[in-house]
Amino acid sequence: MFRWPISVYYEDTDAGGVVYHANYLNFFERARTEWLRAMGVSQTALLADDIAFVVKRAALDFCKAARFEQNLMVETEVIQLKKASLVFKQRLIDEQGVTYCAAEILVACVALSRMRPRAIPQNIAQEFNGGS
Amino acid sequence: MFRWPISVYYEDTDAGGVVYHANYLNFFERARTEWLRAMGVSQTALLADDIAFVVKRAALDFCKAARFEQNLMVETEVIQLKKASLVFKQRLIDEQGVTYCAAEILVACVALSRMRPRAIPQNIAQEFNGGS
Amino acid sequence: MFRWPISVYYEDTDAGGVVYHANYLNFFERARTEWLRAMGVSQTALLADDIAFVVKRAALDFCKAARFEQNLMVETEVIQLKKASLVFKQRLIDEQGVTYCAAEILVACVALSRMRPRAIPQNIAQEFNGGS
Amino acid sequence: MFRWPISVYYEDTDAGGVVYHANYLNFFERARTEWLRAMGVSQTALLADDIAFVVKRAALDFCKAARFEQNLMVETEVIQLKKASLVFKQRLIDEQGVTYCAAEILVACVALSRMRPRAIPQNIAQEFNGGS
Repeated sequence: MFRWPISVYYEDTDAGGVVYHANYLNFFERARTEWLRAMGVSQTALLADDIAFVVKRAALDFCKAARFEQNLMVETEVIQLKKASLVFKQRLIDEQGVTYCAAEILVACVALSRMRPRAIPQNIAQEFNGGS
Repeated sequence: MFRWPISVYYEDTDAGGVVYHANYLNFFERARTEWLRAMGVSQTALLADDIAFVVKRAALDFCKAARFEQNLMVETEVIQLKKASLVFKQRLIDEQGVTYCAAEILVACVALSRMRPRAIPQNIAQEFNGGS
Repeated sequence: MFRWPISVYYEDTDAGGVVYHANYLNFFERARTEWLRAMGVSQTALLADDIAFVVKRAALDFCKAARFEQNLMVETEVIQLKKASLVFKQRLIDEQGVTYCAAEILVACVALSRMRPRAIPQNIAQEFNGGS
Repeated sequence: MFRWPISVYYEDTDAGGVVYHANYLNFFERARTEWLRAMGVSQTALLADDIAFVVKRAALDFCKAARFEQNLMVETEVIQLKKASLVFKQRLIDEQGVTYCAAEILVACVALSRMRPRAIPQNIAQEFNGGS
């Protein structure tokens, strides 16, 4: 499991006084990017090789409204790993472990120029597989 | 069914050259807001009465990547209507009817100050029920 | 002068209850894009030719806070036109002509791959010059 | 001077492959919020007291396009401090000190309910004054 801290800024909120629902997807995306970076994987380098990870499906439960200036944490794990796609389970929680948003995100590995599926690079698959 | 046009601007795209996945939720939210406005319902007036519609669950299929300067359309219908919540089915399509993103969005009616469920105002429920 | 309507949605607001300051730049960008489209100019086609318009400088006066569900208008004119750059004067106003945000935006024409200045395509310069 | 690190994520970029110009304002706002937090000032508590800091004017120079996955730094200082407003000078730089965006941001202290100027709380003014 990978953990990444999130601070809520003005830009993340809306006139309801809470985090605007679409922005939880940003928090989750940052956590996935940082996980790859922690593995030493640069998505910029992948893009240069015509490889991109693309969100194909997302299921989100908005459990509790997060607020401006809250310190939160995204917990990320991989619950399914296939040849050309993987499913992340992600939760945005506070310091007491209360869940604000829970998500399952299906991400496909694609050849960007043709937007066609391609195998996840082996070193990345291995890392998501627990480094084993 | 309610239809609302969407244009894709730079702000909607990312370095992958296509619409950033979280921003499809913006397109769907605009369409729901405009449907309410077409019914003569102002969410600003609702907020002043402590009534808000809050997204509680979202399931999204990202079918095809939309691109900068595309002219698209959001189709919105209500597929479930309960006392304090409703489910919207929404599709982002192009002029040929090709689907770019499909969503089911569960929206709850809440008393904003306490974030507790409350009945959907009757005039709005009636309109979503087909005006009958 | 070119006019483009703007509706304020939840995504544009913040917890202060008004439009988040950075988002006025989105409104102005949409208006510039639509002006180009009204001239028959596709920025997608320009990008394919390695030509991009890039914001190099912006001066913004935030005069009055715009609110959720307001119907506003962006007025855009060109106040300076050089070989490889131009200055837009833009105002976001309401139906009574009250100004919410006023901006001067310096935009440069660049060869995107090298991020180097290049001449504005002649047909576009001519249009901005009043079509004369 | 206050320093705050920024990572560039997909959400910050656009189809030009670089950071979308409006999003530099987000980076600067995060840095100002974090400076207040480092002083022990909660803007949430200020809002509860009807006090808000509102951006009234911004002058931005976009010097160099920042890219996805870059690690950058915002440097912030106060160059003018008045009774009810202050001017921040902010720069987004990389590890070599190269400037990507430079800004002067005039922020007013307002009574939020009436959007009228009010004195900056004394403890905050003192901190911005160098803590003297």
